Amino acid sequence: MDIQQVLAQYRSRTELQLEQLFQEMASLEPRLPEAMRYGLLNGGKRLRPALVYLSHQLCSTDQPPHALTDRAAVAIECIHSYSLIHDDLPAMDDDDLRRGKPTCHIVFDEATAILAGDALQCLAFEQLSEIIDPTLALRQLKMMKVLARASGRQGMVAGQAFDLGHVGQPLTLEQLQAMHACKTGALITCAVELGALSAGEPEGERLDQLRRFGDLVGLAFQVQDDLLDIEGDTATLGKPQGSDQAQNKPTYPALLGMEGARSKLNQLHQEAVAILTGFGPDAEALIALTDYIVARDH
Amino acid sequence: MDIQQVLAQYRSRTELQLEQLFQEMASLEPRLPEAMRYGLLNGGKRLRPALVYLSHQLCSTDQPPHALTDRAAVAIECIHSYSLIHDDLPAMDDDDLRRGKPTCHIVFDEATAILAGDALQCLAFEQLSEIIDPTLALRQLKMMKVLARASGRQGMVAGQAFDLGHVGQPLTLEQLQAMHACKTGALITCAVELGALSAGEPEGERLDQLRRFGDLVGLAFQVQDDLLDIEGDTATLGKPQGSDQAQNKPTYPALLGMEGARSKLNQLHQEAVAILTGFGPDAEALIALTDYIVARDH
Repeated sequence: MDIQQVLAQYRSRTELQLEQLFQEMASLEPRLPEAMRYGLLNGGKRLRPALVYLSHQLCSTDQPPHALTDRAAVAIECIHSYSLIHDDLPAMDDDDLRRGKPTCHIVFDEATAILAGDALQCLAFEQLSEIIDPTLALRQLKMMKVLARASGRQGMVAGQAFDLGHVGQPLTLEQLQAMHACKTGALITCAVELGALSAGEPEGERLDQLRRFGDLVGLAFQVQDDLLDIEGDTATLGKPQGSDQAQNKPTYPALLGMEGARSKLNQLHQEAVAILTGFGPDAEALIALTDYIVARDH
Repeated sequence: MDIQQVLAQYRSRTELQLEQLFQEMASLEPRLPEAMRYGLLNGGKRLRPALVYLSHQLCSTDQPPHALTDRAAVAIECIHSYSLIHDDLPAMDDDDLRRGKPTCHIVFDEATAILAGDALQCLAFEQLSEIIDPTLALRQLKMMKVLARASGRQGMVAGQAFDLGHVGQPLTLEQLQAMHACKTGALITCAVELGALSAGEPEGERLDQLRRFGDLVGLAFQVQDDLLDIEGDTATLGKPQGSDQAQNKPTYPALLGMEGARSKLNQLHQEAVAILTGFGPDAEALIALTDYIVARDH
């Protein structure tokens, strides 16, 4: 399996839908959808949509992704993009560059960037509230709840708040892990869960295993991010290499050393793959994606 | 009917639920729920929840409000509160005072205020996604869609973006109206719609009439707001009287003169009440609320 090809396929599928969001959007203030579009269609890897689609595939081997899977993929990318726009704001991480391009508040202005983020969060829930098939209404509500829980005060936003509240303070490994579990992990686990739920996966051991897989791959993603900040290349990363160190941010390498962080990554990778292996041959693509996430260079 | 008493009753019902939101909320970063709570439980009049409850009552005379009506009342207040927190930010309206108290970013900090707003928006959708009764799932999805449409890029956020994009520029009456229809009107109409939908009101002439009523009362609310900014009292308003004029903001009195604005308010009031009168005696409480909105002094 060529995971790059699989990723490219789901990336196209996602981008096409994201583009469509802006076709029928007459707005009282055209700069608003322009800024939303800028933040959303910015060359992202679309890893979260890929997790949605591949998790759906794992739970529903013979069925292609349907409208609800598509909506989930779009919704999670709207949430992810809004969080990046807000995180980059001067009052937050104050970043001028994102994926090699000026951030939203640099291209537009702060107020527009705040509002574009607000509208993108709203758009995520709007996408998932569209009634596609009345018999799927309960499934859809459950998916909205999962998305809301992962995104808000007990998930992503809490992680960012904790991060900002501890700038310059040393963190224990436990605190670092808890922070990342919220800040990036919650939405990654959510992607896996949404894919499974869109396939009709019921509550039970399988869904719990997939959640556990999501947690592991989410942490692995972050450890790799920290390693890339030290070993990566600014041009490939699309952001200044070494920025975590420069800002004295707590990272896995800072707490565990480079070797310790690499060994942690390896351990998370193995545990994640072990869970998927239990699902048999249906998990092949999701395993390939996990390998890719751990080995990626940007 | 003593509308003050009715308002007080629904205000208590709403506040009780808003308080409960913070009882079970262990957070990684305690300042986040504190800031959310500060923005949400700030002495608001809870007009939007009252509109939800009274619109429910109009459509469901013999049934008391149920869990879905409550969720809608809480959700709409979460959206309203998040929008106030973000509107007050330095990059937006830069207000230090809201309802007589320091604004969220003054008490906490800008980053926390942005995140508290983000988490409150998310909480609105989380509240409405909770499955209460499986037979109501379709109704619930429809309510979420209505709330999302009113809050986002084609509703409230678009209105705020337009407002900020036209600071210091003269607006036509048509532009002013379009701006307010989005900025405050969309959420007020949404409140009326959510109440009716929670009562099971089907699509049709009655629901269209209620939407039209919502649009009228939303505009009337804004005209009265503009008049209060000129005629009101700083202590009663909880914000500096004359701040619109001082900031050279476009207002109804600026465009129509005081008499013209009063006559406009009167006309909107009459039209709104005329629609409700068509609903017979069931509309009594909603008419009283309309009278109150038009005559309020803060």
